Amino acid sequence: MDARYQPADPNFADRIRESFARHGFMTLLGATIVRVEPGLVEIEVPFRPDLTQQHGYFHAGVTSAIADSAGGYAGYTLFPAGRSVLTVEFKINLVAPAHGERLCARGQVVKSGRTLTICALEVFALSRGGDGEAGVIRTLCASGLQTLICLHGRADE
Amino acid sequence: MDARYQPADPNFADRIRESFARHGFMTLLGATIVRVEPGLVEIEVPFRPDLTQQHGYFHAGVTSAIADSAGGYAGYTLFPAGRSVLTVEFKINLVAPAHGERLCARGQVVKSGRTLTICALEVFALSRGGDGEAGVIRTLCASGLQTLICLHGRADE
Amino acid sequence: MDARYQPADPNFADRIRESFARHGFMTLLGATIVRVEPGLVEIEVPFRPDLTQQHGYFHAGVTSAIADSAGGYAGYTLFPAGRSVLTVEFKINLVAPAHGERLCARGQVVKSGRTLTICALEVFALSRGGDGEAGVIRTLCASGLQTLICLHGRADE
Amino acid sequence: MDARYQPADPNFADRIRESFARHGFMTLLGATIVRVEPGLVEIEVPFRPDLTQQHGYFHAGVTSAIADSAGGYAGYTLFPAGRSVLTVEFKINLVAPAHGERLCARGQVVKSGRTLTICALEVFALSRGGDGEAGVIRTLCASGLQTLICLHGRADE
Repeated sequence: MDARYQPADPNFADRIRESFARHGFMTLLGATIVRVEPGLVEIEVPFRPDLTQQHGYFHAGVTSAIADSAGGYAGYTLFPAGRSVLTVEFKINLVAPAHGERLCARGQVVKSGRTLTICALEVFALSRGGDGEAGVIRTLCASGLQTLICLHGRADE
Repeated sequence: MDARYQPADPNFADRIRESFARHGFMTLLGATIVRVEPGLVEIEVPFRPDLTQQHGYFHAGVTSAIADSAGGYAGYTLFPAGRSVLTVEFKINLVAPAHGERLCARGQVVKSGRTLTICALEVFALSRGGDGEAGVIRTLCASGLQTLICLHGRADE
Repeated sequence: MDARYQPADPNFADRIRESFARHGFMTLLGATIVRVEPGLVEIEVPFRPDLTQQHGYFHAGVTSAIADSAGGYAGYTLFPAGRSVLTVEFKINLVAPAHGERLCARGQVVKSGRTLTICALEVFALSRGGDGEAGVIRTLCASGLQTLICLHGRADE
Repeated sequence: MDARYQPADPNFADRIRESFARHGFMTLLGATIVRVEPGLVEIEVPFRPDLTQQHGYFHAGVTSAIADSAGGYAGYTLFPAGRSVLTVEFKINLVAPAHGERLCARGQVVKSGRTLTICALEVFALSRGGDGEAGVIRTLCASGLQTLICLHGRADE
């Protein structure tokens, strides 16, 4: 846990899982939240043929959708209760083909402000190691930067 | 048609429709190409509840996926035959809620180079006008900028 | 003049010229405001050898500095009196060498909100035409997108 | 030193200092290179009133100029001899006022490819600590992401 970040709402993890469950699109992608900490959220998506682009890799739209959501929820972990989060903008570099058994997007708060929050985004393609190799091979396939706005006086519903 | 842009391959429109048909993810979204011209492509997605975020609007991941694809194909219209297109990076500002009956993303070439191509991205939310109103209300909901790379010596398959 | 944009403060042009005069850095660059309209500002910089990069063209830092300022002031034209403008972030593509007798940056409001304003940025390199050619050759050398924040309750001083 | 990155040219540091000396604009800003390692470059600028914006802080144009240069040279450390570097695009978030005795920009390679290189950019404002405090206070004032292109067959002159 990153000691820099103190959540304003102790129920931040529940709040995030409830909000995530209301995202029809995350369900369509088969995405799940795999990690929630103050200022950090990870979202994973297993490979499916209907998530691909023309070469059979994960489509950049999948990569950027889970990156955007991971960043949005990372910022949301630090918001007081009763607020809502919106993405103002994000930029993403697709640095390697998103080729693997699943994608894992990590959003991490760089700067948390009263109105605006800035997050770093990273997406990794995960593959099982070959014969005799233990563990999982992680390849960075996208790197991004995102600006969020905290909407005061509006619950996330 | 924009006189600035001369397609290098007269079959560019067929080439794009074939490539698009191989994108499993575009099929999952229900996306279709509605316009193809040299340097310009438009992609539409009708509203479905499984394309939404927590407030019931189109998810930013849908908005950015079709914006990225529209830009990628806009660049691809100007490539010679036998090349492939990859998104290097894109940045997108979500300027209004993506609330409507369908989304329309437009990619438009700003600068076409031998290796790199730069596209402007716009996404509009389209709604039918109210009683007595003719036509469709278009609201700009996203504006972006994208860098593409033309892969030489590799067909898009 | 763009009819979409109504300035909230009729003295917007004076307010901008006064603010610009307080930018030590714009003076150092030799930059001047050459156009102010609601939602649009243009800033020019004549060529000087101390504004160059290693190939003798304008440095990308000059290009992006005047693009950022043109966008910031374009947003500022629409702010009520007594507010201040800050750049939240910008992204800029350097699409051609910034080679010419002067650079002209144009900032143009894409979306004006109460808190956030989004601007499109363009920078042109201007050169005199050759023998027998009238007028000036304009080459697009940068294209960008910018997010501004309006600081309420704080004058720009 | 980051073991991930092996410079292709053992004279990379000399090559960078020579190139930097040809940037008229870096001289105008009073910028110096303070650190060069494979995949990492830092550039500093001391405060001067002619580098400011309207509130007396470093102008965003200074912040982004040294961030862009630090990233460009970070990528350049890994290029073979006889190549040149150009910035394709960058995005920068200005996360805090650039207020201090000097600015330090760090460019760090995220992904190094044959044609394209991606760098992370950070700019810190440095101030001396108060009475009884040792050392320097570093405040992150900007965070960015940059795409560079390696020009083959063209020396950096």
